[in-house]
Amino acid sequence: MTRLALLPLALLAAQAAAPAAVAQPPKREPTPNDTLVSPEVKDKTITFRLYAPKASEVTLRGDWMDGPAVKMTKDDKGVWSATAGPLPADYYSYSFTVDGVRTLDPKNATIKQGVASLDNMVLVPGPEAEFMALQPVPHGEVRQAWYNSSTLGQQRRMHVYTPPGYDAGADKYPVLYLLHGGGDEDSGWSTIGRAGLILDNLIAEKKAKPMLVVMPNGSLPRPANLTPGAKLDPKEMAAIQDRFTNELLKDVVPFVEKTYRVVPDAGHRALAGLSMGGGQTTRVLTTNPDKFGYFAIWSAGLFGGNPDAFEGQNEKFLAEADRVNKGVKLLAITVGDKDFALAGSKALAGVLEKRGIKHELTVTGGGHTWINWRQYLRDLAPRLFQDAK
Amino acid sequence: MTRLALLPLALLAAQAAAPAAVAQPPKREPTPNDTLVSPEVKDKTITFRLYAPKASEVTLRGDWMDGPAVKMTKDDKGVWSATAGPLPADYYSYSFTVDGVRTLDPKNATIKQGVASLDNMVLVPGPEAEFMALQPVPHGEVRQAWYNSSTLGQQRRMHVYTPPGYDAGADKYPVLYLLHGGGDEDSGWSTIGRAGLILDNLIAEKKAKPMLVVMPNGSLPRPANLTPGAKLDPKEMAAIQDRFTNELLKDVVPFVEKTYRVVPDAGHRALAGLSMGGGQTTRVLTTNPDKFGYFAIWSAGLFGGNPDAFEGQNEKFLAEADRVNKGVKLLAITVGDKDFALAGSKALAGVLEKRGIKHELTVTGGGHTWINWRQYLRDLAPRLFQDAK
Repeated sequence: MTRLALLPLALLAAQAAAPAAVAQPPKREPTPNDTLVSPEVKDKTITFRLYAPKASEVTLRGDWMDGPAVKMTKDDKGVWSATAGPLPADYYSYSFTVDGVRTLDPKNATIKQGVASLDNMVLVPGPEAEFMALQPVPHGEVRQAWYNSSTLGQQRRMHVYTPPGYDAGADKYPVLYLLHGGGDEDSGWSTIGRAGLILDNLIAEKKAKPMLVVMPNGSLPRPANLTPGAKLDPKEMAAIQDRFTNELLKDVVPFVEKTYRVVPDAGHRALAGLSMGGGQTTRVLTTNPDKFGYFAIWSAGLFGGNPDAFEGQNEKFLAEADRVNKGVKLLAITVGDKDFALAGSKALAGVLEKRGIKHELTVTGGGHTWINWRQYLRDLAPRLFQDAK
Repeated sequence: MTRLALLPLALLAAQAAAPAAVAQPPKREPTPNDTLVSPEVKDKTITFRLYAPKASEVTLRGDWMDGPAVKMTKDDKGVWSATAGPLPADYYSYSFTVDGVRTLDPKNATIKQGVASLDNMVLVPGPEAEFMALQPVPHGEVRQAWYNSSTLGQQRRMHVYTPPGYDAGADKYPVLYLLHGGGDEDSGWSTIGRAGLILDNLIAEKKAKPMLVVMPNGSLPRPANLTPGAKLDPKEMAAIQDRFTNELLKDVVPFVEKTYRVVPDAGHRALAGLSMGGGQTTRVLTTNPDKFGYFAIWSAGLFGGNPDAFEGQNEKFLAEADRVNKGVKLLAITVGDKDFALAGSKALAGVLEKRGIKHELTVTGGGHTWINWRQYLRDLAPRLFQDAK
């Protein structure tokens, strides 16, 4: 019955038929939890609350924090609380840790789902967040679609954004393939990433061309022959890296081009990814630079910052600067100045510079968080497909 | 970094480019939580585990239970556990309560999202669950669509299932409008309800006609002029009940019939709902019996079991048995024998019987749970639209 906590029984009854059956909460003593509000957003501050009278320590961790988790304080009724901010208008994620166990805010059902965990989300409204807010503009759809992966030998799910008017029209559209990071799955860009709303707003302002955005699941199942915990030799590592490239080029793209009204050529395909997805994007770039007209690598780069190893492994790609420069209209590397991928991003840009491959390196503020990645999508989409058709 | 817990770092690195930046977990002492598995399904039993060394009581509550929550037991490493079953193959929901605070299983990212709470879900595979399993059959899409509600004065979201082949074809389809219960929202039938997969499987077996399934958000915002906690007089109650009817008939149905390729007549519309949604279905039936060819009322009925009050309020409908019997092809009331809505369902059927309105009352096993409602959908869909077109 806990799920009814925020809705008074009278209202539930009233929303049903007159008179109709509704759930009866069990009779018990009221607690502060019954009327607890969390999170509460006010004047750009967020107050988090958790009723946990028996807990001995509760901490709060959010993606706006640079430092360690914040200890929450307990009042005499057993309610723990902490206030953050004032913060810039944005969409934030957070979680609680109760006596060492990471948990969610039970009063906030707005969540981001990962492969192995969840975070709560909370919106601080304001002008800076309008680009990702639900606005009174025409909306596209976000669809969940299943496809058969020959690469992985299983059915896989993707999320697909179709722009406003897709169903009613007959136009063919370009496609942005948009990859999430490690631990996330195909819903990430539609929940915490707010990709559909960002595109709705950009298209309404005529800043971005109408396009499909395909968001596959980049978290691949562990190969059957891979021993858990085993160290990978370079060949095994390469084989695993190629699994996603194969999944994308042999399964995802063909399914999309068969199923949706899209233009099936490189000039109408873009590929962007963050963190692990940025690594996947880099791999596709270096092995198949002719398949996409646009590449964006966010919060990723050279692991360990070893340009020599990267050059050795990607000599074929690096030796063809002319071909790459002719085919690729945009190769954008973006990273925050507090992101641990900063050095790796610079190292990647350094190799491209040295070998004469056209690219951009943009260093923004911020760290390795969705706060940055939503802005990167907002800034990338208007640069795609402007001269297409 | 907790979100990376189930994926070894080497594999994350390997899934990224060679060599690419990935998140580095902070260095700390290992705990039993690092390798904890929950839930673990084996031979139709489910073992639930939670690492909470400082907690003094942890209980488990699941929708297969008739009785009170089960106390979990703690081992000397601080891991609490409990095993359920053997259980019939099905899709179950559960939550933990740690020292009085309801929480989720942090090791299970498969969740059902409500308006004000979350539950974890776990599948026990087996023949009885095949009807809702991901099978190697053609799949439809589940779409999230936004629309403007004139009734509520806000943008609202719905989930829409389109059958396999919808995009490629030109056919017009019938529509099942499918309503969730109190505390849930428009995603419920696509997560814990598994409506898309159930329809995929029924359509592949040619048991159900291809149809759209429209799943609106039946949890309406509180009216601005309604004082929280105030007792509602009958007029206010009626006004609130009519809000959903208006939302459905003036906003949801027109949007669907404008946006999708559907046949816009009553013979190609069905309405089904559970619990609060069953109450909403009852209200639409009694006020607009001519708008849908099929009605299904699940786990709902007469609140308080007062047939006289219901007759008094619905005299116009009840007096037109001939008209209703001619237009409505199916009026199905279904409820479990352990459901608190059993008496109310019987009372509703009693009034219909007395007034000569054709209907079916089916009492199944089970209680007020999604275990039943998924089966009710499986059993209803094949009975819809068979003579249509």
